[in-house]
Amino acid sequence: MIKYCFGIDVGGTTVKCGLLSVEGELLESWEIPTRMEENGSHILPDVAETILQKIAQKNLDKAEIAGVGIGIPGPVNDAGEVPVAVNLHWGYVNVVKELGELTGLMVKAGNDANVAALGELWQGGGAGYQDMIMVTLGTGVGGGIILGGKIVAGAHGAGGEIGHAHVSDTITEACNCGNHGCLEQVASATGIANLARQILDSCDEPSLMRGHKFVSAKTVFDAVKEGDALAIRVAEEFGDCLGKALAVFAVVVDPQIIVIGGGVSKAGPVLLDYIVEPFKKNTFSACRNTEFALAKLGNDAGIYGAAKMVL
Amino acid sequence: MIKYCFGIDVGGTTVKCGLLSVEGELLESWEIPTRMEENGSHILPDVAETILQKIAQKNLDKAEIAGVGIGIPGPVNDAGEVPVAVNLHWGYVNVVKELGELTGLMVKAGNDANVAALGELWQGGGAGYQDMIMVTLGTGVGGGIILGGKIVAGAHGAGGEIGHAHVSDTITEACNCGNHGCLEQVASATGIANLARQILDSCDEPSLMRGHKFVSAKTVFDAVKEGDALAIRVAEEFGDCLGKALAVFAVVVDPQIIVIGGGVSKAGPVLLDYIVEPFKKNTFSACRNTEFALAKLGNDAGIYGAAKMVL
Repeated sequence: MIKYCFGIDVGGTTVKCGLLSVEGELLESWEIPTRMEENGSHILPDVAETILQKIAQKNLDKAEIAGVGIGIPGPVNDAGEVPVAVNLHWGYVNVVKELGELTGLMVKAGNDANVAALGELWQGGGAGYQDMIMVTLGTGVGGGIILGGKIVAGAHGAGGEIGHAHVSDTITEACNCGNHGCLEQVASATGIANLARQILDSCDEPSLMRGHKFVSAKTVFDAVKEGDALAIRVAEEFGDCLGKALAVFAVVVDPQIIVIGGGVSKAGPVLLDYIVEPFKKNTFSACRNTEFALAKLGNDAGIYGAAKMVL
Repeated sequence: MIKYCFGIDVGGTTVKCGLLSVEGELLESWEIPTRMEENGSHILPDVAETILQKIAQKNLDKAEIAGVGIGIPGPVNDAGEVPVAVNLHWGYVNVVKELGELTGLMVKAGNDANVAALGELWQGGGAGYQDMIMVTLGTGVGGGIILGGKIVAGAHGAGGEIGHAHVSDTITEACNCGNHGCLEQVASATGIANLARQILDSCDEPSLMRGHKFVSAKTVFDAVKEGDALAIRVAEEFGDCLGKALAVFAVVVDPQIIVIGGGVSKAGPVLLDYIVEPFKKNTFSACRNTEFALAKLGNDAGIYGAAKMVL
């Protein structure tokens, strides 16, 4: 009888590993370092080794294990192949085939942002729903689209790459992707901090944000909670941009729920106050009652989502 | 052995009907009037009657018929229920149940724009692909999203309502949907004609468009083909707006192909010249080689797509 599954989330520094029950309980989690040397060729063998060790240590029967799901920081096609993953120093890697042979277990692979979205759908902010847009506001802006409980991976592995939606014709700096005016340039932690600095530099108005040497997204939302007028202006500009972008994504796939995650979402429910109103104002009438929620799983979302892929 | 299927496309004036082979050949097509009286309560019985007549006339065996697919101008949920269809004077109608009982055949129902997109995927501009965005440029702008060969209907029946994507903060007139700045207001035949009139009124420059009492989208693209400078300006503004919007939709679902249909697409390949460049410029690198094609089935797309739903 199938009782367990493994969820693996490969990052640039560490690989997060989880042993879960098929019901979605995280029984144990641990980390191993991500070894980049020799074009990252040790990564999958290291993952296989830690899984096999865990199986031996816990005295599990392979017949009780559904398989191994793994999230990769790069595009992954439906067959589980990665054409290239710059952050892992990988060229082409057939993850499903290689890790399957190394472990003797069924393997599924997906892009890490999409996999994290699936995790939030299964056991986090989107639990109980089937159709979700997740947007992750961190150093950059990531995302994942889940329809009918399945990841939309996309024809070129770019499904849910909503951080690179073009939202502004007036931004002259280049985004990390090379384009100009991406959502990520406004709605990421970096983008919010830039916006705050611009607004602070443009006037002499007093603000709680002025007391800080480095103004971060956290500085902004801490000040918003104190009623700081300039911080509220930053939050309004950020929320207007993100709300309008989500209003567009919603008329494409019409989800049940939109889940907001990433470091910026630690600001809490106040964040949604600034996003939901411009969303409602700009989206199609039928989409106006789309639910909103904050992500719940933090850095474990990738482990949960990876495990869910094999169930 | 299953050989046939019916495709039905309910419009505000006529119901288009088709008998197709399961291979996708349109064997026969005909129309019946759409009777709106008594809250449109005659529409489904009329459809059932014409199907049963056709079966009798052609001496078909019901066992040879896969079923009846039907496209409805309104939202349709996954169970084939229509909450309301204003253009048919309908309140709630369970199309699948009612038409199924009336015909004794398996019935599937979908929104007409989504169904037309499925038709283009099966036998039209998107043939051979599985993941497609279709945009229909007519009096309004409609659309349909197909992923893995299936329609994305959406949680509120609003999947593919891309005509109501918010694309402009500067448009002060209201869209038919009540919002301001929808894609439909710029990229529909009506939007293109409005843009042409604005540009003509703003200057004295000579233009072939000035010879026409009513400037339509056709007037504009006919003049574009003659090298008319002002018409080319209209086409560039239209193409820039639509190309940018498609660039955003592409990072959400990352399709293999984008198909352009509707009356405006009769302008031919020249239309794509103005859309594809701004698309490539503004979308995420991985999506840049997304294919583009013009729709091929014209007004029959709905019949084809409806039939495909039951196969």
